[in-house]
Amino acid sequence: MSLLPLPASAPAPDSVPLRYGAVIYPGYQALDLFGPLDALNSLGLAYPFELYMIAETMEPVSTKPPAPYHNPSGNFAQSVLPTHTFDNAPPIDVLIVPGGIGNRDEKIAEPVIRYIASVYPTLKYLMTVCTGSVLAARAGILDGKSATTNKRAWERSIKQGPRVNWVAHARWVVDGNIWTSSGVSAGLDLIFAFMDQVFGGDTSDLIANFLEYERHRDPSWDPYAELYGL
Amino acid sequence: MSLLPLPASAPAPDSVPLRYGAVIYPGYQALDLFGPLDALNSLGLAYPFELYMIAETMEPVSTKPPAPYHNPSGNFAQSVLPTHTFDNAPPIDVLIVPGGIGNRDEKIAEPVIRYIASVYPTLKYLMTVCTGSVLAARAGILDGKSATTNKRAWERSIKQGPRVNWVAHARWVVDGNIWTSSGVSAGLDLIFAFMDQVFGGDTSDLIANFLEYERHRDPSWDPYAELYGL
Repeated sequence: MSLLPLPASAPAPDSVPLRYGAVIYPGYQALDLFGPLDALNSLGLAYPFELYMIAETMEPVSTKPPAPYHNPSGNFAQSVLPTHTFDNAPPIDVLIVPGGIGNRDEKIAEPVIRYIASVYPTLKYLMTVCTGSVLAARAGILDGKSATTNKRAWERSIKQGPRVNWVAHARWVVDGNIWTSSGVSAGLDLIFAFMDQVFGGDTSDLIANFLEYERHRDPSWDPYAELYGL
Repeated sequence: MSLLPLPASAPAPDSVPLRYGAVIYPGYQALDLFGPLDALNSLGLAYPFELYMIAETMEPVSTKPPAPYHNPSGNFAQSVLPTHTFDNAPPIDVLIVPGGIGNRDEKIAEPVIRYIASVYPTLKYLMTVCTGSVLAARAGILDGKSATTNKRAWERSIKQGPRVNWVAHARWVVDGNIWTSSGVSAGLDLIFAFMDQVFGGDTSDLIANFLEYERHRDPSWDPYAELYGL
């Protein structure tokens, strides 16, 4: 049975990327990751996708940022299980890197940056959401390329990639095989733009409608650049 | 330090619900849950919120639906850790129930339905996303009330709550202390409408802007009802 009949224009499974990796680290922003993953979870009802959840260790990874960035009076977080570590992750076609307050911690950021730098040459595509692009910038792979990032954290972020052509007014930016988006929910528009290119517009719209998500289709749509004075 | 300075109009912590529970079950739809939770994760930078992730057992809960509903050729899913079971969950103020293909399985649905029926009388608020409202309907707590649900799964869903006033053309519906939304991404508009009422519009907008999420503010906005012929 197929719960998700694909449109006639959908590409054959052997012509699309099937192996996906998602980076997780303490204090990543949940929606940065679960926006794109939920769209792929849904498309995965019809394609034989594989997903690896990749972290520094095999310990559960919490959305709770480390001190001093979390609220010590509360305890509101979710823990996700890695399937692999940065040291033993299998080959992948697509890597998704979320942002989040946790990556302000150097001990958290450094292993992620090393993994991105080492795996990027083997990827078909890299996608970053929010300040995930800061980690990619620090890995050196955005030098000379155009990219965007979270708009509220703009000044703090762009300093960390001085050779990147940061685009302030952008919901998402594509440069070569690197897809970067603005903050948090922009990852949803990013994944549908990616699906447009790789799986075709009919399939992309099928999944957006499955999620009842009204897409922003213009990559330059960005009221948050103005809101945050950029 | 406060990473999220609240507006002057934000209510005091002792005047808002602080204890949240999220139901998880195999094959729940990730974005149904992580949309609302990410908004609350963010507001939790400023409020002393508690979150309990509540499941049938303490085993990790995967987004992968059970057979025959998953794609046997793929392996694309994420596993989240429960903090409590339906039998030992602490008292909560707000319960969030996601939908998802997994709840078509009776062995999965029944313990969730029993928990909703038992806990509802103790709640300040119940929120459901997508077919989470079908589980609430089957728990009997929507009888005589207005509610909505996923639009693609409409016919299959409403049959399971014959005494519910199902509203076909709705992004979300509020009846008393029960907040139900349409499919998947509608949970984002639901949580911001909830924050409007409970935390005030300034705080709600602060969080929506933090997530760079353009809200639908009209509960009757629903192109998906038309798309799916309702």
